[in-house]
Amino acid sequence: MKKLINSPDDVVADALAGIAAAHPSLRVDVKARVITRAAQTKVGKVALVSGGGSGHEPLHGGFVGPGMLDAACPGEVFTSPVPGQMLAAALAVDGGAGVVLVVKNYTGDVLNFQMAAELAAEEGVSVETVLVDDDVAVQDSTWTAGRRGTGATLFVEKIAGAAAERGDSLAEVAALGRRVNAASRSFAVALTAVTTPAAGRPGFDLPDDEIEVGVGIHGEPGRSREKIRPAREIVADAVAAILADQPLESGEEVIAMVNGLGGTPLLELYIVFGEVASLLEARGVRIARNLVGDYVTSLDMAGVSITLCRADAELLHLWDAPVNTPGLRWGV
Amino acid sequence: MKKLINSPDDVVADALAGIAAAHPSLRVDVKARVITRAAQTKVGKVALVSGGGSGHEPLHGGFVGPGMLDAACPGEVFTSPVPGQMLAAALAVDGGAGVVLVVKNYTGDVLNFQMAAELAAEEGVSVETVLVDDDVAVQDSTWTAGRRGTGATLFVEKIAGAAAERGDSLAEVAALGRRVNAASRSFAVALTAVTTPAAGRPGFDLPDDEIEVGVGIHGEPGRSREKIRPAREIVADAVAAILADQPLESGEEVIAMVNGLGGTPLLELYIVFGEVASLLEARGVRIARNLVGDYVTSLDMAGVSITLCRADAELLHLWDAPVNTPGLRWGV
Repeated sequence: MKKLINSPDDVVADALAGIAAAHPSLRVDVKARVITRAAQTKVGKVALVSGGGSGHEPLHGGFVGPGMLDAACPGEVFTSPVPGQMLAAALAVDGGAGVVLVVKNYTGDVLNFQMAAELAAEEGVSVETVLVDDDVAVQDSTWTAGRRGTGATLFVEKIAGAAAERGDSLAEVAALGRRVNAASRSFAVALTAVTTPAAGRPGFDLPDDEIEVGVGIHGEPGRSREKIRPAREIVADAVAAILADQPLESGEEVIAMVNGLGGTPLLELYIVFGEVASLLEARGVRIARNLVGDYVTSLDMAGVSITLCRADAELLHLWDAPVNTPGLRWGV
Repeated sequence: MKKLINSPDDVVADALAGIAAAHPSLRVDVKARVITRAAQTKVGKVALVSGGGSGHEPLHGGFVGPGMLDAACPGEVFTSPVPGQMLAAALAVDGGAGVVLVVKNYTGDVLNFQMAAELAAEEGVSVETVLVDDDVAVQDSTWTAGRRGTGATLFVEKIAGAAAERGDSLAEVAALGRRVNAASRSFAVALTAVTTPAAGRPGFDLPDDEIEVGVGIHGEPGRSREKIRPAREIVADAVAAILADQPLESGEEVIAMVNGLGGTPLLELYIVFGEVASLLEARGVRIARNLVGDYVTSLDMAGVSITLCRADAELLHLWDAPVNTPGLRWGV
């Protein structure tokens, strides 16, 4: 294993120290493992808290800032944070209007956030949970009952974050987050396996001419192992998998994300986006907004995920609202 | 070789089609291989044109937009664009105040941009060239007489771009670009070799426990081949190489970039940034601004480059000026 780390045990602490040094707009408690905005939550604003295993950067810590999250709790690599972290984050950012927890659907995260929600409630904080489960590849995967939560997490955090910023109530922000999740579908393909610092070797074997179709963001198995093919065919299958689950009619609009899993050149992501755009255009579906880049990663895994969110005027309006985070920034 | 491409011959054209689909703020001439802003250059504004081999994205096409470049010419992967592209770009964006060509110091780029400058002059366009040669690793490398141009290219494009936007003259913009280059130094380390689509195999052999110290952005050899070590030690050597070439005194300020070469997780880049910050802090040097992420890449190569630019009030003011490009955006 070759990685730019000091030791596998120190990866998260050292990375948090770097995040703290790089971003004065964030307050990073390296010991407690909680990232919040440097500025206190305004009284009356609903707060958004998310978190999950590290290794998916910029998710979640890179999405803390005005217009998006109020706090993030990073766990160990590919390991859920603990309820104490989540509770500390919720208490730190509650502005009296309650806290929305954005939770990717993995068993550990779900259980720990549930416990944190109960503990926060005991402390008098109103809590709503938005579960993200957008990955159409598999049901009941290695670490999940039901669908895995992947790329749509960014969409939920952005759009619900904008709603919170404009003054929506706890119930409204949570409802919007759920609506975004329900409107979103993702599908991913891996070209290489991921190597965690702790394991020191690839999490699975993938021959030199094969790809993992429907892979999860921890390298969980997908639907099939296939020979590498032209990008056009790989993308066609991924988009077909999404549309089989959520048909899009001619005239509809989407927010589309082509997301690198960590080890894929941006040049290739643009090739993939070009194919997605051609396929949707042929169906009369308009890509109203897009993101192309590394947003929800899996350490060094080469591959790509595609997320489509069926959008209406309100979702696009909230998408366009200003956001100022290390990982996503516009309008400011 | 596993890549998300249709065929090695179509990589650049397909990626340009994707860039065109993703960014309505750009005008992409896929056939002529010229990327310009969708909006015409204002009369009287100095225009900035850059370009180079593809495979370094978001450099250069991703830096076209208000506050940075007016046009970019992508060549084939790791291959200089041709003079005709550069000439077309210069003619397309000249607003009557002249064109600054930002050229990374590689023999092919230098010769082709020189020819383009002569052709543009014949067409009545005033041209100044800013040569970027910030990489302290080696003199006279594989493709270069003198030093290679790497990460500082972004600094030159950002700061000279801001100067052009505020109305500086051709001579002033070029002088600022040269000043930024003179104030900047870079050093890179590779953990894996890079595989170009055309070659289909890694450009060099790098054993499982070794790193290439002082590598170039095309995988050119560096200073030495060494065993992998903790990030702290690797970074200390890289920063020492930079400071040996350009000492920084206590009290000085820098803009620091920790740049992923394409295959390195953001988590690791933050670890590297934390080490850079500690080292500079111990010397009393203040990191006034920073970038951590993939900006000047080498396709799928794992590794990192560090660039430090000694900054003064004027450079920081121009750095902070609004920029609105796919690869860099703030203040808008």
